Amino acid sequence: MANFKGHALPGSLFLIVGLWWSVKYPLKYFHQKGKRTLLTRHYQRLEIIEAAIRTLFPVIGILAEQFVPDGPHLHLYSDSQWIKLMNWQHSTMYLFFSVSGLTDMLTYLFSHVPLGLDRLVMAVATFNEGFLFYHHVHNRPPLDQYIHSLLLCAVFGGAVSIFLEVILRDNIVLELFRTSLTILQGTWFWQIGFVLFPPFGTQEWDQNDHSNLMFITMCFCWHYLAALGIVATNYSLVYCLLTRLKRHREGEIIGIQQLKSDPTAQKALLSGSDED
Amino acid sequence: MANFKGHALPGSLFLIVGLWWSVKYPLKYFHQKGKRTLLTRHYQRLEIIEAAIRTLFPVIGILAEQFVPDGPHLHLYSDSQWIKLMNWQHSTMYLFFSVSGLTDMLTYLFSHVPLGLDRLVMAVATFNEGFLFYHHVHNRPPLDQYIHSLLLCAVFGGAVSIFLEVILRDNIVLELFRTSLTILQGTWFWQIGFVLFPPFGTQEWDQNDHSNLMFITMCFCWHYLAALGIVATNYSLVYCLLTRLKRHREGEIIGIQQLKSDPTAQKALLSGSDED
Amino acid sequence: MANFKGHALPGSLFLIVGLWWSVKYPLKYFHQKGKRTLLTRHYQRLEIIEAAIRTLFPVIGILAEQFVPDGPHLHLYSDSQWIKLMNWQHSTMYLFFSVSGLTDMLTYLFSHVPLGLDRLVMAVATFNEGFLFYHHVHNRPPLDQYIHSLLLCAVFGGAVSIFLEVILRDNIVLELFRTSLTILQGTWFWQIGFVLFPPFGTQEWDQNDHSNLMFITMCFCWHYLAALGIVATNYSLVYCLLTRLKRHREGEIIGIQQLKSDPTAQKALLSGSDED
Amino acid sequence: MANFKGHALPGSLFLIVGLWWSVKYPLKYFHQKGKRTLLTRHYQRLEIIEAAIRTLFPVIGILAEQFVPDGPHLHLYSDSQWIKLMNWQHSTMYLFFSVSGLTDMLTYLFSHVPLGLDRLVMAVATFNEGFLFYHHVHNRPPLDQYIHSLLLCAVFGGAVSIFLEVILRDNIVLELFRTSLTILQGTWFWQIGFVLFPPFGTQEWDQNDHSNLMFITMCFCWHYLAALGIVATNYSLVYCLLTRLKRHREGEIIGIQQLKSDPTAQKALLSGSDED
Repeated sequence: MANFKGHALPGSLFLIVGLWWSVKYPLKYFHQKGKRTLLTRHYQRLEIIEAAIRTLFPVIGILAEQFVPDGPHLHLYSDSQWIKLMNWQHSTMYLFFSVSGLTDMLTYLFSHVPLGLDRLVMAVATFNEGFLFYHHVHNRPPLDQYIHSLLLCAVFGGAVSIFLEVILRDNIVLELFRTSLTILQGTWFWQIGFVLFPPFGTQEWDQNDHSNLMFITMCFCWHYLAALGIVATNYSLVYCLLTRLKRHREGEIIGIQQLKSDPTAQKALLSGSDED
Repeated sequence: MANFKGHALPGSLFLIVGLWWSVKYPLKYFHQKGKRTLLTRHYQRLEIIEAAIRTLFPVIGILAEQFVPDGPHLHLYSDSQWIKLMNWQHSTMYLFFSVSGLTDMLTYLFSHVPLGLDRLVMAVATFNEGFLFYHHVHNRPPLDQYIHSLLLCAVFGGAVSIFLEVILRDNIVLELFRTSLTILQGTWFWQIGFVLFPPFGTQEWDQNDHSNLMFITMCFCWHYLAALGIVATNYSLVYCLLTRLKRHREGEIIGIQQLKSDPTAQKALLSGSDED
Repeated sequence: MANFKGHALPGSLFLIVGLWWSVKYPLKYFHQKGKRTLLTRHYQRLEIIEAAIRTLFPVIGILAEQFVPDGPHLHLYSDSQWIKLMNWQHSTMYLFFSVSGLTDMLTYLFSHVPLGLDRLVMAVATFNEGFLFYHHVHNRPPLDQYIHSLLLCAVFGGAVSIFLEVILRDNIVLELFRTSLTILQGTWFWQIGFVLFPPFGTQEWDQNDHSNLMFITMCFCWHYLAALGIVATNYSLVYCLLTRLKRHREGEIIGIQQLKSDPTAQKALLSGSDED
Repeated sequence: MANFKGHALPGSLFLIVGLWWSVKYPLKYFHQKGKRTLLTRHYQRLEIIEAAIRTLFPVIGILAEQFVPDGPHLHLYSDSQWIKLMNWQHSTMYLFFSVSGLTDMLTYLFSHVPLGLDRLVMAVATFNEGFLFYHHVHNRPPLDQYIHSLLLCAVFGGAVSIFLEVILRDNIVLELFRTSLTILQGTWFWQIGFVLFPPFGTQEWDQNDHSNLMFITMCFCWHYLAALGIVATNYSLVYCLLTRLKRHREGEIIGIQQLKSDPTAQKALLSGSDED
């Protein structure tokens, strides 16, 4: 959908996933450092829920692309003409991400699916998005073409980084990199919407002005800086929260140990030690 | 051969190899997980047979390219003119794949050939296919050029992935990735044949219509999705089959162990234990 | 700033960092080889100071770009026109390097920041420099465009190499490679300044002469050779210095041991052994 | 030197190095497999000699480029004109390879030079060759441009492969790959000489005929196939030779052991065992 909503939708989906990842991966990282074996069952359940959501999100996108009033309504070819190929291409992009979510789910549900396959399919889905975008923006005004092509940096960079995760699984740096690129995609889709289809009746951008192109390039860099900032903030927040929780719990333990020295409280200790 | 058969032939060869790989690699993966040492002799024999077939297949291609009625019949230059260079280029592509098969065979037959050389030559053969295709499609109508150039994604992606296998041998994810790209090549060659040389007298495609290019891009993505689906299906089928076989065999063992407790059946046990 | 100073400034900053690295990394390498555990606290302090300087340096660049007489003075948009986008783009480049320095500092100050994140942000900052330069040089004379685009080789090569350091941390070869590319950038910025804005009133270069382009290409190679030479020289100097220091200290120890055999000097020995 | 000799010279140098490598690396590989510790001192001496020769070879090239009758004779600039920039660019290419040889020599002579630096400089020298070639062939007829640009595949492929050796040192597959690409460069320089400057007064090639380009592409593939064949042949020859030598020596040992049982020959045994 070449309008504001058509860019706000994928933007929001990418943003939600990116923000969630910017919380999940630090959480996992700090837990793994502390006690390696615990909590893995909780994480597995979490991963399956996340994968289910990442399977459903693109389905929303597909439905939106197909059944908007001027959409193709699942018709592909009639009267020797292709119908609404743009919407079909967007649907295909969403479809791949849906398959990627599904593969994630299968990887965590069935132990015989080899680890790394989920990352491979995610890399393929991301590459596919870039591939379709690359062949997507011909015959448009320069600014439109350019603002979409900037997205390719984030997309192909992400694809390479995710492909590396096939080999280097659970590398926190690569995971945070992926997270920041996902947030970048999310905010950039919103930016595209605001630039090409100004929603509040503001003045339209001159699509052929070179200085607009120059500003957009720089703006893309600022978006990435913002994405890095968001990831860093969430990372620190998670760390502070976990540290406070740990202190709180340790405080309880110390309290219990003080009880220990008091022989009349030893019964309470025996029942309380199960909670840790 | 710039006709339907000339695309159906490589398509079929790639498809056969791809489908076989989609069965072989899961089989090998599940066996290796269970008992690492057993069955390796069987696998080695299997690999040699596969390599022999992958050496012979391209020879069929070379013979077809050279000795079709309008082929060069091994003449390269006469009357100060190159003869049928297209057919010669196709022959060269086949030749490299034949050499790759030969190297595979040698790697499994002779222990002094270093492991990884087979993958290197396979990567070179794949790169070579892409290299010749890249310089192959000049001076043709846009759709013809474009539909061939899409193949390059699968080919160069495959070459990089196979080159990685030199270092990361026996990585099931990379092997399945290679398998899916091989199936993609197979189905895409058939697609090219159907688009450029409609076999059933159907209407020809307009080679200059931009919306045809857009559909073909998307169609390529769908082919890859289908290839992924085929690999996933075969992977699951192999898993189910192996699990059922294992249960069946374990059932026998349990039956035998029940016989054990029956002292009159102990002679049968002694002869039956050889079967496992 | 499209003048001599605008190229001399980044040139000097890159040169200072590069030259410092060409001393630091050999120093660290030789120390690590000898005694792995010692001196790490000194190094950590050193790294923090370096990171602080690498955070401040780009701030100087940003201030220079913004507050030169013909700079934008932090105004971005007025009278429906973008103001001095060139200076803003340069500021953005400096900003990323500043963030990279900050990340380095945080990595060494707080142990919960994952190792490798500093290198990732440095790779992103370097890539970002190349990214902005790539979209920066349109609509200029050929020589101007070309001399800037040569920089991209050093920049993107550096970005890939630094990204590799995320995975292969503390690899001396990659560190020296990065050092040499940083020195190359430093000297090349000076070269650009001398070519495009001859400072001593010398004859201007013909911007459209093809032989000038050919010479500049070759000159770039010579710069890199010089950078390699500087790295090699500093590496050797550090080695000689450390070897001499070591011998000197061992000489003292031997002297002390000779004193040992002299029973009247044993008191001196006991106090002297603290110095090692 | 844009003539036959100017291509025959680098062709021969690359061929000699390539052929030598196709003997050296198998030799080293088989020895390392047998007895890991022995013969290393011999190999080190061999490596130093090789490095010295690889330092001297390019010096011959530089001298040839500078002091041929129509060469620049070390003059770079006079009468406000660059002198013979082509020859200077060739000299620069040679110079980098010379520096690469020197680095190899230093790596084997001094233990404080980090391993992998030799490969890094070799990768840089190879990349530099490609870099200069890429900016070298403007303003020439299509065939001339194309036949040189094919070289870039071998050169950049080689540069990436050698860069990988920084991390994966002593990987026989990468070493054989490098060897085959070096031989390819050698034979291709000869091919360029024969095509662009037919030495035996044969008919000149039409530089604008597209079918010539098509043949040259294919011819490049055949050259690589030949290079692979040469490497494979030398590899097998080295293996056969070493196996025969080993058997011969073992035969001697068995003979000696037969002597052992003969008590009158025990003195001969004691002196003979030193030879193994």
